[in-house]
Amino acid sequence: MGRVTERRKVIRIRDGAVSARPDTLVAEEPLEIRLNGKPLAITMRTPGDDFALAAGFLVSEGVLGAASDLLNIVYCAGATVDGSNTYNVVDVKTAPDVVLPDITLERNVYTTSSCGLCGKASLDAVRTTARWPIADTPPVRVAPELLASLPDRLRAAQRVFDRTGGLHAAALFGEDGELLDIREDVGRHNAVDKLVGRALQKGDLPLSRTVLLVSGRASFELAQKAVMAGIPVLAAVSAPSSLAVDLATETGLTLVGFLRGSSMNVYAGEERVI
Amino acid sequence: MGRVTERRKVIRIRDGAVSARPDTLVAEEPLEIRLNGKPLAITMRTPGDDFALAAGFLVSEGVLGAASDLLNIVYCAGATVDGSNTYNVVDVKTAPDVVLPDITLERNVYTTSSCGLCGKASLDAVRTTARWPIADTPPVRVAPELLASLPDRLRAAQRVFDRTGGLHAAALFGEDGELLDIREDVGRHNAVDKLVGRALQKGDLPLSRTVLLVSGRASFELAQKAVMAGIPVLAAVSAPSSLAVDLATETGLTLVGFLRGSSMNVYAGEERVI
Repeated sequence: MGRVTERRKVIRIRDGAVSARPDTLVAEEPLEIRLNGKPLAITMRTPGDDFALAAGFLVSEGVLGAASDLLNIVYCAGATVDGSNTYNVVDVKTAPDVVLPDITLERNVYTTSSCGLCGKASLDAVRTTARWPIADTPPVRVAPELLASLPDRLRAAQRVFDRTGGLHAAALFGEDGELLDIREDVGRHNAVDKLVGRALQKGDLPLSRTVLLVSGRASFELAQKAVMAGIPVLAAVSAPSSLAVDLATETGLTLVGFLRGSSMNVYAGEERVI
Repeated sequence: MGRVTERRKVIRIRDGAVSARPDTLVAEEPLEIRLNGKPLAITMRTPGDDFALAAGFLVSEGVLGAASDLLNIVYCAGATVDGSNTYNVVDVKTAPDVVLPDITLERNVYTTSSCGLCGKASLDAVRTTARWPIADTPPVRVAPELLASLPDRLRAAQRVFDRTGGLHAAALFGEDGELLDIREDVGRHNAVDKLVGRALQKGDLPLSRTVLLVSGRASFELAQKAVMAGIPVLAAVSAPSSLAVDLATETGLTLVGFLRGSSMNVYAGEERVI
């Protein structure tokens, strides 16, 4: 557990010169998330913060909304042939009053994206499962100058990226720009799940007065995770997708893309930025 | 169908100046893949090449290995309330002699990554389902200089990236450097599935004498897709994960990362490069 990086031999070629040396790589292993003992999903993730990842994933899926919904999370033992614990299976036990999703074949097919058969159905699914509207009263206001300062602060705070180049990062900032938390993972969605899961465990949901910054692009799935956690502002260093913009527009999420230097594009919820 | 990009209003902020204009975004919509009428998986993808995506996905899952395994692929009608076709559900019908996977709950949980409960199990799963060893006889040889030229050629051939900045690309090159095909998608794994699916439809599997280049990182899942298609060389512009390197080492796949300018790192199968 906690194997964030691993060492492997690498052959480097630089302008025709060949050398061999050890290299640091981002670790990637499967994590099976069980809900009250039943397998729900498997994600390829960077080990570490696994309980937070599982909790955050279940926030995105609409199962968990508060720390009190969570009875406990444990690593399941005996996952390998020789009985040793791989720390790659976690079981989330919910409080007795939590309404569980219908874990059918259909349900599992839909797990990773919580979507229907068209973009509209995907948007509807998020709207109907969201526990909170984006309720930032008074409205969060983040000046463009503050937003512009966040990517550098994310990079400065990243602990593993510089060594491997293989990690996505997600950071949560307060409306005043304070860095609240940062998580890294081989999968961008996992990094966000880890952030949201830790917030759930600390009793901080909904994250009504925060800005979520992601290191790459803003897909529908990331916008969904922001909405499900009650985050009012999602900022991405790179491009959003059409469906991410549509979801932001429908739910009142502020969506900022191409946040580079003093430039940015605001795709939805511009009242919070200007 | 074929909505590769969509237009949305965007507020641009450049050094304090604010302007509104239409912007081109990469389209993202769910695609449900059915196998002989039964829902198997949903992926968020960029519309277009959907039949190839479904076929390629099923190559990665070990269901399809040749054009003759495929009876036909159709869009399912009536997916919305008003009965109109969303072109977001495809049904893949297999030839009578194709052995189908056991589509159980367990199976569906494992669908997206074909993995077990630990890295070793993930590697074993690929090894046992792979139809072909990586059999490039005589061995493919790609000089570092040829590899170094590929990223620029991929970028030159990308049709949508420059307009949206939101697409991943995957390209297939011959061992002589000839560009055989290029696909783009909001999801990197989808771009590879589209490439492999088209190769299956053309009767080109296994892709024994090719190089697969991906625009970003090399995860386990991408290495898996290369192995399942019989591709001997996978090159990525950015970092690989530990499990991708392990899979490449075990299966004989050549894995190149950080392919930038005249520099690259070779993580496995270096005999094909130098």
